[in-house]
Amino acid sequence: MSNRLNVQQTARLLLEQDDILILTHQNPDGDTMGCGYSLCLALQQLGKRAMVLCADPVPSRMAFITAHLDPALTLTDPEMAKFVMAVDVADVKLLGSALAVYQQPGMIRLCIDHHPSNREYAADLLLEGEEAAACQIIYDVILAMGCEMTPAIAECLYLGIATDTGCFRYSNTQPRSHLIAAKLMETGINWYEINKVMFEVKSHAQMELERGALQTIRFCCGGKAAMLSITQKLLAEAGATMEDTENITAIARNIEGVEIGATLKERPEGGFKVSIRTSEQVDACQICSAFGGGGHMRAAGCLIKEPLERVMELLEKRFEAVFAGEE
Amino acid sequence: MSNRLNVQQTARLLLEQDDILILTHQNPDGDTMGCGYSLCLALQQLGKRAMVLCADPVPSRMAFITAHLDPALTLTDPEMAKFVMAVDVADVKLLGSALAVYQQPGMIRLCIDHHPSNREYAADLLLEGEEAAACQIIYDVILAMGCEMTPAIAECLYLGIATDTGCFRYSNTQPRSHLIAAKLMETGINWYEINKVMFEVKSHAQMELERGALQTIRFCCGGKAAMLSITQKLLAEAGATMEDTENITAIARNIEGVEIGATLKERPEGGFKVSIRTSEQVDACQICSAFGGGGHMRAAGCLIKEPLERVMELLEKRFEAVFAGEE
Repeated sequence: MSNRLNVQQTARLLLEQDDILILTHQNPDGDTMGCGYSLCLALQQLGKRAMVLCADPVPSRMAFITAHLDPALTLTDPEMAKFVMAVDVADVKLLGSALAVYQQPGMIRLCIDHHPSNREYAADLLLEGEEAAACQIIYDVILAMGCEMTPAIAECLYLGIATDTGCFRYSNTQPRSHLIAAKLMETGINWYEINKVMFEVKSHAQMELERGALQTIRFCCGGKAAMLSITQKLLAEAGATMEDTENITAIARNIEGVEIGATLKERPEGGFKVSIRTSEQVDACQICSAFGGGGHMRAAGCLIKEPLERVMELLEKRFEAVFAGEE
Repeated sequence: MSNRLNVQQTARLLLEQDDILILTHQNPDGDTMGCGYSLCLALQQLGKRAMVLCADPVPSRMAFITAHLDPALTLTDPEMAKFVMAVDVADVKLLGSALAVYQQPGMIRLCIDHHPSNREYAADLLLEGEEAAACQIIYDVILAMGCEMTPAIAECLYLGIATDTGCFRYSNTQPRSHLIAAKLMETGINWYEINKVMFEVKSHAQMELERGALQTIRFCCGGKAAMLSITQKLLAEAGATMEDTENITAIARNIEGVEIGATLKERPEGGFKVSIRTSEQVDACQICSAFGGGGHMRAAGCLIKEPLERVMELLEKRFEAVFAGEE
């Protein structure tokens, strides 16, 4: 169990530290990156040495967040750190095996997070489970430390809030998300460019993948369910990786009348990773648990080690049972 | 030329009226509809009779905005109106031929608009050309009239602001757009459902159209330009109308590295309506003006009465000239 801190206590704790290492989760998204780099910039503004460490490289479309670090105040080696903290990391396992050294008990002094499922691995924890993005908490901490909200910091925070709210579209968006966004925009940042890169631009590979996946669409249950499949062959033809399949997962569910959308992704070693997205009426987790998987009410996943046609057959039967009210 | 009013003057003018007819533009979008219905609800809250009139029916995905009108305070016939006004209508021609009667000079007493290009056809005009959505101006007017911001009104206004800012993504979005959104959300509206219907759900016809259009993609100028085409045959096969092609227009420009995206839409009578979308580096209007068209810097259109292959040839030549710096 962690010792719980509020925003003021967290700010005070950070003001007492120097040589600060900020850890983010692996497969980094805009929120964990936005948290890490905005906090690093704020600490450097206060004259402290700090650095951000992630098991994976900064995704190229988010490269702008590293542009304003102060080289003179950036730790050149994580081992120089005197204070280790994590941002937007619900569980030490999510740091990734490359950062396994920090998974040992007692390594992480502070965690700032918004996941209600936080495993309380850090000595001190600032957890606000209602916040749409961890960047909204970091925003408070940065102001509580008395830092100036510079455009460089504001860009990082905007990235995180926009990412986790689907650019203010998702149901987790709060009035507060908008209020903070307004404040960040007033610093003169180019939010439009951030939104464009994060939400509009598709790589050639992603476009080719979408084109190929749309060709495979199959409706069942009278149009209430739809399945798309992505084979290894399609991936190779599109020059795409599994990372590029992220946007595809929502396509099926977002077709009018569809309550269950399934995306079947073939694994190199055979079998299919199935992602299920559902409307308010259907429990995705329950569907996947029948195949040994799990997840959330509206988004869940499972692994079915069968050939494509058989996977579709099994899923269709399961969907029919759900709509027949047998589940 | 219109007599210019500010928000307070507009509110005072409206408070003096009754039996108010609110006109919106044809091919209605969320902003003109949001303006019309929010203002109608506000006027009815003040005990006034009012109605909204549009040349086209309310689009089905926006049907919710009509749910809270007070039948007892809704004019049953536009001819009963004693005061005619227009919202988000830059030019009387945009009312559409079905509302031609209101295009005659002197018919429209008041216009509330955010298009800098407003033709000043109304006796009085509240024009705020900097506002991202006309609904942001209506928000001010409704509060200035002393109305309560009910969830029913807030839903209409949110619809308009979300529509015109691309859900807070586009470059026209203002800090103020976010501040108003926060206020509207605090009334307890289901903004998530609005965003889902407006930005996520696709009809079967739209999905089929996208699938077909993606098959036609053609890159040129070393990948800096891309063209998609929508033939009458594809429209028929997808069971789609030209209205369903709206989302397609942005696809080509949003591919990584593409600076000119063109969408070629075949007309029933032959020839192609070409929509051009460009990055910051290229002037779309200049491209289209060479074919007798026009528009904005980043979005423009023209008509080319040639067969598909010839249209693509002409466009490609033109794009090459643009990139060669000859334009």
